[in-house]
Amino acid sequence: MSYAKQMLDTYPRDFNLDAGQLAATIDALSDCAQACTACADDCLSEEMVAELTKCIRMCLDCADVCTATLRVVSRQTDYDANLTRVQLQACVVACRSCGDECERHAEMHEHCRVCAEACSQRRAGLQRPAGRDDVASSCAR
Amino acid sequence: MSYAKQMLDTYPRDFNLDAGQLAATIDALSDCAQACTACADDCLSEEMVAELTKCIRMCLDCADVCTATLRVVSRQTDYDANLTRVQLQACVVACRSCGDECERHAEMHEHCRVCAEACSQRRAGLQRPAGRDDVASSCAR
Amino acid sequence: MSYAKQMLDTYPRDFNLDAGQLAATIDALSDCAQACTACADDCLSEEMVAELTKCIRMCLDCADVCTATLRVVSRQTDYDANLTRVQLQACVVACRSCGDECERHAEMHEHCRVCAEACSQRRAGLQRPAGRDDVASSCAR
Amino acid sequence: MSYAKQMLDTYPRDFNLDAGQLAATIDALSDCAQACTACADDCLSEEMVAELTKCIRMCLDCADVCTATLRVVSRQTDYDANLTRVQLQACVVACRSCGDECERHAEMHEHCRVCAEACSQRRAGLQRPAGRDDVASSCAR
Repeated sequence: MSYAKQMLDTYPRDFNLDAGQLAATIDALSDCAQACTACADDCLSEEMVAELTKCIRMCLDCADVCTATLRVVSRQTDYDANLTRVQLQACVVACRSCGDECERHAEMHEHCRVCAEACSQRRAGLQRPAGRDDVASSCAR
Repeated sequence: MSYAKQMLDTYPRDFNLDAGQLAATIDALSDCAQACTACADDCLSEEMVAELTKCIRMCLDCADVCTATLRVVSRQTDYDANLTRVQLQACVVACRSCGDECERHAEMHEHCRVCAEACSQRRAGLQRPAGRDDVASSCAR
Repeated sequence: MSYAKQMLDTYPRDFNLDAGQLAATIDALSDCAQACTACADDCLSEEMVAELTKCIRMCLDCADVCTATLRVVSRQTDYDANLTRVQLQACVVACRSCGDECERHAEMHEHCRVCAEACSQRRAGLQRPAGRDDVASSCAR
Repeated sequence: MSYAKQMLDTYPRDFNLDAGQLAATIDALSDCAQACTACADDCLSEEMVAELTKCIRMCLDCADVCTATLRVVSRQTDYDANLTRVQLQACVVACRSCGDECERHAEMHEHCRVCAEACSQRRAGLQRPAGRDDVASSCAR
C-alpha cells in the first residue's frame, strides 16, 4: 500500500471521499512531477537540445504545477473546494500541454515517451480525483 | 530595480508584454509565498493555535500555489497562454481564500494583518499581470 | 517498474551509477515528501494540535528539503558531486529530526507512526543513494 | 520594509536573532531563486543553448535549493540548529556552483551576469544569516 494511502487512512477526522482514488491521484502526481523533472534533464543531455527547448519548458512547468497540486490535495484540514478545483484544472492543462509536446518526440526519445505516459496517467487520475462531486465534475469537462 | 525586472530586461528574445508589470507580479508572488510560509509558522507559535488551523492550512496552500505560479510566469520560452491563465486563476483563488481567512484574525494577530495585505497586493498584481490581453482579461473577471 | 527507474533507464548518456539504487532513493524521497506534507496536515486536524506544533514544523521542513533533494538527484546532466553530497546530508538531517519527533507521537497518532517509517526508509535510501562513491561515503557517515 | 522583515517583527514569541539580518537573508534567497529560474529560461531561449546546458542545470538546482532553504529559515517555531546549518551549507554550495558557472558566461549573456550577482549576494547573506552564532560560524567557513 502506498504511503499516500496509509496517510489518508490515518487522517484523524471523517472525510467524504474515496481514499483509494485520492491516493491514486496523489501517487500519479508524484510520478508526473518526478518524470517531468527527469525528462527536462534528459532533454538537456540530448545532442539536439536546441530542438527540445519547448519540451524542457513544458516539463519544468508541469513539474512545478504537479508539485503544488500534490501538496494541496494532500491536505484535508478545512478542505477548500474552490481552490482544489481550479488548481486541479491548472494541473490538467499543464499535464496536457506537457504530454502533447512529449508525445511529439516519443518516437525519437524514449524518455519523452515515458514522460508522456506519466502525464497521461496523471490526467486520467485528475478526472476522477477524489470522489468529491464538485472536484470530479469540474475536472471531467 | 528588482532582480525580476533585471532578468526580464535581459531576456534574449522579443516578448509582447509589459516587463514592468510582469516584474511587479513576480515580486508580489515572491512576497506572498514568503509571507504565507511565515504566517503559517507564526500561527503555530500562538498559544491559541487550535483556533488557527484553518488559517495555517490556507497559508500553506497559498505559499505552494504562489511558488508554482511564480515559476511558471518567470518563464518566457514558448509561452503557453492556456496554462498561464489557469494557473494565475488558481493563484487568485488561493490568495483570496488565504487573505480572507487572515483578515478575520488581523485585529488579534498582527502577522495575519501583514499576510492579508501580502495576499491582497498579490491579487491586485494578478489582475493586471503582464500586458498580455488573454491573461489580463481572464484574471480581471 | 517505477517512473523514476524508467526515466533513469532512458537517460541519453552514460552514467556511472546504479540506476536501481538511485531510483529507490528518488522513490523514497517522493514518499517522504508526501508523507510529511500529509502528517503536518493530520496533526493540524488533531484536537491536541497545541502539543504537535514541533512535529508540524519538522514535517513542513522535511517535505521542503526532500522535494528539493528529489529534484537535485533526479538530474544527471553535468552532475555536481559537491552539491549532491551536501544536499543529501541536509536531507538526512531533516529526515532524522522529523522521524525522531514523529516517533515520539507514534503510539498515540498512527499518522506519525507511518510518517516516521517514511522518514526512516528515506534515511536508509540516502545512505546508499547512487553507487557514486563520493556520495555514498559522505552519506554513510 | 520588506514583507520578510514585517513577518519577523510580528512573530509572537521571543527569538534570539537579528531580525534585520535574517530578513535580508530571506529576501536574498527569494531573489536568487527567482533569478535562477529566469536565467535557466533565458538560456533556453539562446541560440547557443547547447553550450549552456550546464548553466541551465546549475540554475535549476540553485532555484530548488534556495526555495527550500528560504522556507526552512522562514520558520522560527522550534528552531532546529542542525538542519538550518546544513541546509544553509547546501545553499552556499548551490549558489557558488551556479554563480561560478554563470560568471563564465557573464560577458556574453547579460542574464548570466545578473544571475551571478544574485547568487553572489546570496552567498554574502548566508555568511551572516541570522545572528545565531552556530549558523553564522558554520556558514562563514
